[in-house]
Amino acid sequence: MENWESIDQVGMANALSQARQSFNEGGIPIGCSLVSVDGTVLGAGHNQRIQKSSPTLHGEIAAIEDAGRLKAGMYRDATIYTTLSPCSMCTGAILLYKIPRVVIGENKTFSMGAEDLLKSRGVEVVILDNPECKELMATFIREKPEEWNEDIGEE
Amino acid sequence: MENWESIDQVGMANALSQARQSFNEGGIPIGCSLVSVDGTVLGAGHNQRIQKSSPTLHGEIAAIEDAGRLKAGMYRDATIYTTLSPCSMCTGAILLYKIPRVVIGENKTFSMGAEDLLKSRGVEVVILDNPECKELMATFIREKPEEWNEDIGEE
Repeated sequence: MENWESIDQVGMANALSQARQSFNEGGIPIGCSLVSVDGTVLGAGHNQRIQKSSPTLHGEIAAIEDAGRLKAGMYRDATIYTTLSPCSMCTGAILLYKIPRVVIGENKTFSMGAEDLLKSRGVEVVILDNPECKELMATFIREKPEEWNEDIGEE
Repeated sequence: MENWESIDQVGMANALSQARQSFNEGGIPIGCSLVSVDGTVLGAGHNQRIQKSSPTLHGEIAAIEDAGRLKAGMYRDATIYTTLSPCSMCTGAILLYKIPRVVIGENKTFSMGAEDLLKSRGVEVVILDNPECKELMATFIREKPEEWNEDIGEE
């Protein structure tokens, strides 16, 4: 049996560290890590809309990109940790690579409802309701609502 | 009424040019362009798995990335042209930014069935069944099956 508690601590600590880094850079504070079942961090990253003018480097995409080219099997016992409920693009990336487990810091400040699509495709979804994840996002949305709306495709 | 025939020629010519460029570089020959309703090419790109060791720069993601940061309204009268039927990640990106129209070069050499998800969400999907798109992909899959499987998350 996997020691999820210990692996999840490593994974979410990495994701939160990325989110804090992005916040401190003036960016959107969403971080992510991709961790194998033995606790190895395969990749980590954060939203880069502001830092790199990137519309596609959301936290999850940045973490998968950071991991580089992997054989299909490497994704299939991995967990992806994200500080915020994933959008449809990041959900699609999780489904593309058949990542079987998603741990989400929080889904209160934003959710596109993609968790239901993940679950319907057999992905295990764990919600942590982490106070720091919520506080980072709430602060950013309050201070920079236009950048946030741009990131989720809203006017 | 939009002159789709003329705009679609520009869009697919750009996408095919990107696919040919990738093929000539030894990469996966899938190209894409994002074109506004007045025929302006907002962005273009191609799969970068081999060239940049990127697991996330599929053609569609590369084209959206190339367009840079856009206001939400810019996507909402745009068409995305892709030489091959999109995967779940690229489908999710199209849904995230509410791009209302997708023109697909071909869906014979590969389809993940994402066209149904696009249509169910109100996106107009046009299939061209373009012979050159098919030939580029068929040649690549025959010559480099392992790289192709890696790109679609298969063993």
